[in-house]
Amino acid sequence: MEKYLVLATFVGSIIALLFVVITAKKVLRFSEGTPLMQKISQSIRQGANAYLKRQYSVVGVFFACMVVVLCVMAACGLLTWFVPFAFLTGGFFSGLSGFIGMKIATASNCRTANACQEGLNRGLRVAFSAGSVMGFTVVGLGLLDISVWFFLLRFVFKLEASAITSAMLTFGMGASSMALFARVGGGIFTKAADVGADLVGKVEAGIPEDDPRNPAVIADNVGDNVGDVAGMGADLYESYVGSIISASALGVAAFSDQAFKAMAIPMVMAAIGIICSIIGTFFVRTDEQADQRTLLKALSRGTNLSAILIAIIACPLVILLLGKEHLGLYFAILAGLIAGVLIGKATEYYTSDTFKPTQDLSSKSQTGAATIIIGGLGLGMLSTAVPIIIVAICILVAYLCSGGAASTGMGLYGIALAAVGMLSTLGITLATDAYGPVADNAGGIAEMAGLAPEVRQRTDALDSLGNTTAATGKGFAIGSAALTALALMASYIEKVKEVGADVTFQDFSLMNPVVLVGLFIGACLPFVFAALTMNSVGRAAQSVVLEVRRQFREITGLMDSKADPDYARCVDLCTKASLHEMILPTIIAVVCPIVVGLILGYMGVVGMLAGATVTGFLMAIYMANAGGAWDNAKKYIEAGHFGGKGSDCHKAGVVGDTVGDPFKDTSGPAINILIKLLSMVSIVFAGLVVNFHLL
Amino acid sequence: MEKYLVLATFVGSIIALLFVVITAKKVLRFSEGTPLMQKISQSIRQGANAYLKRQYSVVGVFFACMVVVLCVMAACGLLTWFVPFAFLTGGFFSGLSGFIGMKIATASNCRTANACQEGLNRGLRVAFSAGSVMGFTVVGLGLLDISVWFFLLRFVFKLEASAITSAMLTFGMGASSMALFARVGGGIFTKAADVGADLVGKVEAGIPEDDPRNPAVIADNVGDNVGDVAGMGADLYESYVGSIISASALGVAAFSDQAFKAMAIPMVMAAIGIICSIIGTFFVRTDEQADQRTLLKALSRGTNLSAILIAIIACPLVILLLGKEHLGLYFAILAGLIAGVLIGKATEYYTSDTFKPTQDLSSKSQTGAATIIIGGLGLGMLSTAVPIIIVAICILVAYLCSGGAASTGMGLYGIALAAVGMLSTLGITLATDAYGPVADNAGGIAEMAGLAPEVRQRTDALDSLGNTTAATGKGFAIGSAALTALALMASYIEKVKEVGADVTFQDFSLMNPVVLVGLFIGACLPFVFAALTMNSVGRAAQSVVLEVRRQFREITGLMDSKADPDYARCVDLCTKASLHEMILPTIIAVVCPIVVGLILGYMGVVGMLAGATVTGFLMAIYMANAGGAWDNAKKYIEAGHFGGKGSDCHKAGVVGDTVGDPFKDTSGPAINILIKLLSMVSIVFAGLVVNFHLL
Repeated sequence: MEKYLVLATFVGSIIALLFVVITAKKVLRFSEGTPLMQKISQSIRQGANAYLKRQYSVVGVFFACMVVVLCVMAACGLLTWFVPFAFLTGGFFSGLSGFIGMKIATASNCRTANACQEGLNRGLRVAFSAGSVMGFTVVGLGLLDISVWFFLLRFVFKLEASAITSAMLTFGMGASSMALFARVGGGIFTKAADVGADLVGKVEAGIPEDDPRNPAVIADNVGDNVGDVAGMGADLYESYVGSIISASALGVAAFSDQAFKAMAIPMVMAAIGIICSIIGTFFVRTDEQADQRTLLKALSRGTNLSAILIAIIACPLVILLLGKEHLGLYFAILAGLIAGVLIGKATEYYTSDTFKPTQDLSSKSQTGAATIIIGGLGLGMLSTAVPIIIVAICILVAYLCSGGAASTGMGLYGIALAAVGMLSTLGITLATDAYGPVADNAGGIAEMAGLAPEVRQRTDALDSLGNTTAATGKGFAIGSAALTALALMASYIEKVKEVGADVTFQDFSLMNPVVLVGLFIGACLPFVFAALTMNSVGRAAQSVVLEVRRQFREITGLMDSKADPDYARCVDLCTKASLHEMILPTIIAVVCPIVVGLILGYMGVVGMLAGATVTGFLMAIYMANAGGAWDNAKKYIEAGHFGGKGSDCHKAGVVGDTVGDPFKDTSGPAINILIKLLSMVSIVFAGLVVNFHLL
Repeated sequence: MEKYLVLATFVGSIIALLFVVITAKKVLRFSEGTPLMQKISQSIRQGANAYLKRQYSVVGVFFACMVVVLCVMAACGLLTWFVPFAFLTGGFFSGLSGFIGMKIATASNCRTANACQEGLNRGLRVAFSAGSVMGFTVVGLGLLDISVWFFLLRFVFKLEASAITSAMLTFGMGASSMALFARVGGGIFTKAADVGADLVGKVEAGIPEDDPRNPAVIADNVGDNVGDVAGMGADLYESYVGSIISASALGVAAFSDQAFKAMAIPMVMAAIGIICSIIGTFFVRTDEQADQRTLLKALSRGTNLSAILIAIIACPLVILLLGKEHLGLYFAILAGLIAGVLIGKATEYYTSDTFKPTQDLSSKSQTGAATIIIGGLGLGMLSTAVPIIIVAICILVAYLCSGGAASTGMGLYGIALAAVGMLSTLGITLATDAYGPVADNAGGIAEMAGLAPEVRQRTDALDSLGNTTAATGKGFAIGSAALTALALMASYIEKVKEVGADVTFQDFSLMNPVVLVGLFIGACLPFVFAALTMNSVGRAAQSVVLEVRRQFREITGLMDSKADPDYARCVDLCTKASLHEMILPTIIAVVCPIVVGLILGYMGVVGMLAGATVTGFLMAIYMANAGGAWDNAKKYIEAGHFGGKGSDCHKAGVVGDTVGDPFKDTSGPAINILIKLLSMVSIVFAGLVVNFHLL
């Protein structure tokens, strides 16, 4: 039985990767358009490749240091020798997911622009196919990594179930570290370029967005790829793998008699999710006269169908593997699946300009920048309430349905399965999310290559929809991050028991001051992290502003299109700044759990993880939704409301959008990874902390 | 012995109130200045009185409803019959503190302006004396309420120690409810008027601040009194009383053998604090050529002296009452006292323009409003780290020094005593804080009455210093609120045990999903609360903007000073809007703990309290410091940096300041009260929740 389960997981991953190859080939068959379009696309590609190359070399140094530390710990008997290798593969595959996604995205931008010359539906097909490559690369590589390690540890090294999950949690740490670098570095790059290009180009020089005279325009387009594609790919690889392995680990803890089956359920669920998602992708198409609503329907049809298929198949799977008496676990999965959809809807409500909150927000531009900022901050804070309630209900349902009343272990396994359920449609939801930056780039290329206005209109329609799907995707990523973080917290406690601590319930009581102090410190981390990343964007953007101003001043004939700006210099500047700025936040995320553990012990660590998860969830939603709402409020004004483009209201809207940029694309998404990385690091260093701590 | 302790507390309160009467008489002997100044002052006074009168009538309805509910619960045996009465007296005294403070503030504004004609030192003396009246009214009434109830319950009704503290916690709930109404209502009033006056007057019409032609100028000055004076008075009354009674309650739980002595320590400490604070006030004076640094030194001399005196006297007190073996409790008190001072310093560092963070922030105005907003938000978030670490260390020191390692009860009593220690200098710190709005009003009157420019310069010097002391006072209030909230959480658990629940350690474990769900919901409350109050300010300000625009348009001759604006109408508008807007947030604060309790039971409530305390602390610091820094960054620009007044940088600074207004003066301070009110309500309704809950 065990072998078949591993095989099923492996087959799932291979199907995903085959689908990737076929889809990628299909995309690459489309024409790249005129030589000018090819040239622009190539500049973007070169910039993105150069950034990633240098990013990987910086990250490489970090990974080398960590591997040395892990080897030393293994030599001291605090870890097994699998840990350093698992850590490396997690980082490698996470980075690879981002890399492949970015490769296809930078190859598809000009193809999408070209396809949009022929029609909206054709454009959607190219962009969505590129997004699918990204989505299924992430899930395919994730499951491949998991199934290969499972096979090796079980059938080659013949380890026990708990030792297997313990080693596998380490590649979660590798994936999270890589993801944090990619998200933070890419997020700083993209927003520094975006803010810098807008502040000087749009506001000071008064030239339109994506104007080829703007020296930061290529950097801006590179940013979309390294931040919104490569960063997101690494990020979601980490979420996906994290949710599966934490569920497996808790399954082993809960089912001592059927450990391997409980461990396999999340993996097989993921494999089924892949197949259902692939089926869903075939239902994404639209007609030529589509407006935004029809486009959104086309995408929703695909994701909804996948979700329904998964909901149907998961039920017999649970019964088959664990027997009818554990049917409750199915409802836990279902709760996660439904919660994910509902959080997406809530995000859409708060950030789409077809609903009241964003429309109201844009009306606040009438009394200036200050009121639209206050309004957006208020909207973001208020929008945390519904997702919190959804997650709260999901936690309770998952816990109680899976038998938590009788056994805490079962209940926690249920919560972890809810996270797996939520992420089971990741292949297709990520496809709908990742196609956005491709469409955005296509719009840039259309503008720079001087294509007909209706082409830009079509790419804009695709791009605008991308903003909504990106916001939905973010809500989804945050919800699953919270559930996964809780599961990892539980895994941490299992790990602490495993390394020999004499754990009692009192240890984790809120009346234990060590737990409380941990809670305070953990709760503070997302605030500090958000502040550091926002300040980084500010500093990096400021250097872009100065460079763009310099080029406008010094390159004669630039404004009359008689001379070309020095695009490469802006790309280089963003690269250097973002690589420099990404180090401190990541180091903090890795060092904090170790320092807190060495001072406060494992009880303090649990408090810290709980605090970070709770405020991280809130801050991530607050920042993502405020940013999304400002962005769409500006678009709503641009669509002709309250005076339209160029009016005072529009200027106020641009201020809101600029504040929202680092909110939604740098700090907010990085917090998701932060809360999981904290847990992963804690798990890996549990042996050290249990043996050595001050209090 | 017991009687002497009650007597000492009573005497402390009487000394404070005598000092109030003497100081008030001294202030009232100063001249009110010219008839025009008197007339302006009278308009402000009338507006403030009218607001408070209507506020009290709205609050009266709420109190009447709550008393009915409490009486019904008492009739059902879920509460004792003391509870409704204690609830009423808490609310009454809290409101009275604000009322008296406001009376003296509105009587001193013109006197301060007039005294500033004679010199800076004289102006400081009047303003500071008015602040002292407020400060010592709060502590005097607080201790009076406590000592009278203690006397009645102990010597007339002859209750046991635990029954006494249980009844006394209820007047905490009354005080907190009143405080929340006062802070939220007053906070909305003051910021709606301020933002409204600035947006139309300064930005659109281009007339200076406090120009008599601005129809909202009187409303703005009324706002300073009802928000920053009456609101703050009610708020700090609640903090002061809450910290003392929660410490008493935990003392009773920890020392079953010496219950009354342990209960009395916080009260006697408070009485000693009053006397030391009075001594401190005599050392606040400055010379005529004082700059801001000298002025700050003058105030610091007074507060530091008081703190040192208290630190010296507390040691023999603890030994005398509980014996040498409990000397550790003294160190808990000391930890709180020192933590309070350090948090104040940290706040000063982040918000004063003599330090780097605010200077850097003002430099961000060079690239526009968006970058100064991003910078301020980042600064606010980052500034949470140091206070969190200070509070964390304070909690651990207080817990461990007071014997927490041996007994949890002793440790929690220590944490509560740290809060009492922190607030023991409240009389004088509140005086330095409350004098700010008096000086602010004096500046307004000087401007409107056309006094000589050097008078305005002097009031500005006093006012600017007031911004720093206000920020320090806020840091201090937040720190003590966090400690008090933890103490109240512990009191809640004692209460739950008392009403018959079979409490185990597992009940409050972070691995209990009910606790986790409570944690999520509680953590969300400060976000929702901040959003609601910010949106309220936005809506109320918008209505002021429309009214001011209307008056500018319709009253002919207004801009040429040939006709008077209709001040009363703006005051009336603010009054109506703020009373209307204050209801929902307060209702949420009262209803949430009951609903969460009825669904999740007492474990969920404990989770909720912990979540709300932790994120409330973070949000309150984030909002107070971001707001303070924006305010001072604008002032720094106005002082001539980056182009000075009227430059583009200044305009960006004004946007920052406007966003900061509701942050620092409405939402931020109200969160302090929120986290304590949640605990108080939970304690009062513990009997109901333990007997009836869903899960």
